[in-house]
Amino acid sequence: MVSKEMYELGSKRSVIRDLFEYGMQQAAIVGRENVFDFSIGNPTVPAPECVKETMLKLLETSKSQEIHGYTSAQGDFEVRKGLAEYMNNTYNCQLKADNFYITCGAAASLTITLKALTKHPEEDEFIIIAPYFPEYKVFIKNAGAKVVVVPADTENFQIKMDSLEKAITPNTKGIIINSPNNPSGVVYSEKTLNDLANLLKKKSEEYNKPLYLISDEPYREIVYDDIQIPYIPAYYENTIICYSYSKSLSLPGERLGYILVPESVENDKDIYTAVCGAGRSLGYVCAPSMFQKVVLGCLGKTSDVALYDTNRKLLYDGLNNMGYECVKPNGAFYLFVKSLEENAVNFSENAKTFNLLVVPADDFGCPGYVRISYCVDPEMIKRSFDAFQKLKDLY
Amino acid sequence: MVSKEMYELGSKRSVIRDLFEYGMQQAAIVGRENVFDFSIGNPTVPAPECVKETMLKLLETSKSQEIHGYTSAQGDFEVRKGLAEYMNNTYNCQLKADNFYITCGAAASLTITLKALTKHPEEDEFIIIAPYFPEYKVFIKNAGAKVVVVPADTENFQIKMDSLEKAITPNTKGIIINSPNNPSGVVYSEKTLNDLANLLKKKSEEYNKPLYLISDEPYREIVYDDIQIPYIPAYYENTIICYSYSKSLSLPGERLGYILVPESVENDKDIYTAVCGAGRSLGYVCAPSMFQKVVLGCLGKTSDVALYDTNRKLLYDGLNNMGYECVKPNGAFYLFVKSLEENAVNFSENAKTFNLLVVPADDFGCPGYVRISYCVDPEMIKRSFDAFQKLKDLY
Repeated sequence: MVSKEMYELGSKRSVIRDLFEYGMQQAAIVGRENVFDFSIGNPTVPAPECVKETMLKLLETSKSQEIHGYTSAQGDFEVRKGLAEYMNNTYNCQLKADNFYITCGAAASLTITLKALTKHPEEDEFIIIAPYFPEYKVFIKNAGAKVVVVPADTENFQIKMDSLEKAITPNTKGIIINSPNNPSGVVYSEKTLNDLANLLKKKSEEYNKPLYLISDEPYREIVYDDIQIPYIPAYYENTIICYSYSKSLSLPGERLGYILVPESVENDKDIYTAVCGAGRSLGYVCAPSMFQKVVLGCLGKTSDVALYDTNRKLLYDGLNNMGYECVKPNGAFYLFVKSLEENAVNFSENAKTFNLLVVPADDFGCPGYVRISYCVDPEMIKRSFDAFQKLKDLY
Repeated sequence: MVSKEMYELGSKRSVIRDLFEYGMQQAAIVGRENVFDFSIGNPTVPAPECVKETMLKLLETSKSQEIHGYTSAQGDFEVRKGLAEYMNNTYNCQLKADNFYITCGAAASLTITLKALTKHPEEDEFIIIAPYFPEYKVFIKNAGAKVVVVPADTENFQIKMDSLEKAITPNTKGIIINSPNNPSGVVYSEKTLNDLANLLKKKSEEYNKPLYLISDEPYREIVYDDIQIPYIPAYYENTIICYSYSKSLSLPGERLGYILVPESVENDKDIYTAVCGAGRSLGYVCAPSMFQKVVLGCLGKTSDVALYDTNRKLLYDGLNNMGYECVKPNGAFYLFVKSLEENAVNFSENAKTFNLLVVPADDFGCPGYVRISYCVDPEMIKRSFDAFQKLKDLY
């Protein structure tokens, strides 16, 4: 009596969620301190002080309706103006309030953008690059479009340009990238961005149509070693940015992000209008109003990334010394480790016997690897090394 | 290059929004005090004190991650448990936490429910009863299903049961009701609910399939004259409730509501699972986490409905005395007034010449009427009478 697709989607819990629930059960049996749960990407570093301060100030000085009333569907004008100014100062671009559409987080940014861009359901294609965030497939399908996967560059976790070139067809509508990447933690290099831009320009000309680059940037500010994520539209004009404050301000539950359609994008006005329509169609009336204003009070601020960096070094060095093979991450809070056997699902099962919860990357389109999320207590990392050693000794 | 449907949806501003923007422009010209804007249903009564108190307490006593972290997709367990207990105490029902799926407001509740129930896109039909909230059509189309409209009972604004009976076909999946009603302000009577339940039971048997009643209840607590809205599943078992805190707690911008699938509903577990899937597909990761907890701190509390009641009486008596024909509303904050000419759009245009903004009900499926939203400052109502008189004198 119900939608078969929705039933299946609702009944199939993600591997990550499964592991997380298992961890909770195990914690009840063997004690929380003896379970090493690296499954979930839930920020552990607290939100910066400005979040609380802005909330207190709003509650003290503003009327109920001003704080909690509907904003316009695109988001509060003053907030969008603030976002534009902040971006212009930071990236030397020329954005206006009306380039921004504020959303209920990254998932909403993506579902809305994909729905807006899909003109011919069943035909239009979106390309994702392994390893990718598994929900991309769900969001593309929701728009009625087709998913095309480019296999992972397991050498450097950049993009295999020849594979991408082959994946682009006359039906390609857009390409989703995610740098810093979940799950690899890798940041795309200058060369990758230039090569990507050149390829997309070439193929756009070849097919005489714009190819939209959708840059999913929830980890933009979670970067290490003085790396800075550039403004992607500066490399490739037809770039739409999907952003979220879940990670940068440690507000994942509050659901706040935006879609940025710069004027450089071909058909920018039409896309923005279709974004407004898609938001309405999907039931998004406006993004949560108080947190829109909180974001305005926290422009340029982030959670303390140094704490993640400590974890990163601790875990990377620890596992490296034990002989695990892993890419050194430049961003996000994930370590991508090569499984000690071909089948990463088995490997993850073996890890569970030591109460070590790591996510096999099969669902990320990259079999043979596991994702280790290090937004955790550093003490847990230290306690986990013994389990990691025992796991290593199995092989 | 974009979705035609989404583009059209995004470019066609609703009549309500058009009037509201016009009002802002006029205010800049003739002064805010000389514009009588009855267009928008944005609660003016402040949120009850418990909202602020709960927020302050959370900020003081809880850790950042506990307040702002992801909750489970269905919503925080403790919050859902609290909702179940509150409903059980209030309506003498037997609900559990797992009957509730917390959403980003009423629009999300509806889009998710409709998408979950639509098994055969292009075939499945949902019935709406005029006058109806215009976005119902958008949400039904988003699910891929067909909209079937039952014309208004302009006598009493209850339901014309014979018209509804004719509208039900073997493809009918569900019927959406909304009592207290936007835009009529009418509450369905005991007789209407019994007749509706009997009709739906009869037709379910005839077609040997469940017909789901979707009860959209954002105005459940905005009722007058000691009226109480009953628990609809007590009349008809196959009822799914879509709720929102936008009006009852004056939190429209915060986007919080729920879907309630009671155990009495046929295939309740499957529906709940499909609801989880649809929420995921549409990009709703979880409802805003802090306001989930705010709701838990405000169970059973509402904004001060007495203030709306003052407006209701003032406006109803005032317009009635002038010779306007209108239904006395028992709930919500709308007065539904018969246009003084057949064409309510013209009538609304004429009203604009006196800076009086009232919404023609054509888009609500009820031509010949206008909706007057009285969630406004009572002083504005008093100042508006002169304009209403001038408008009357035109005819």
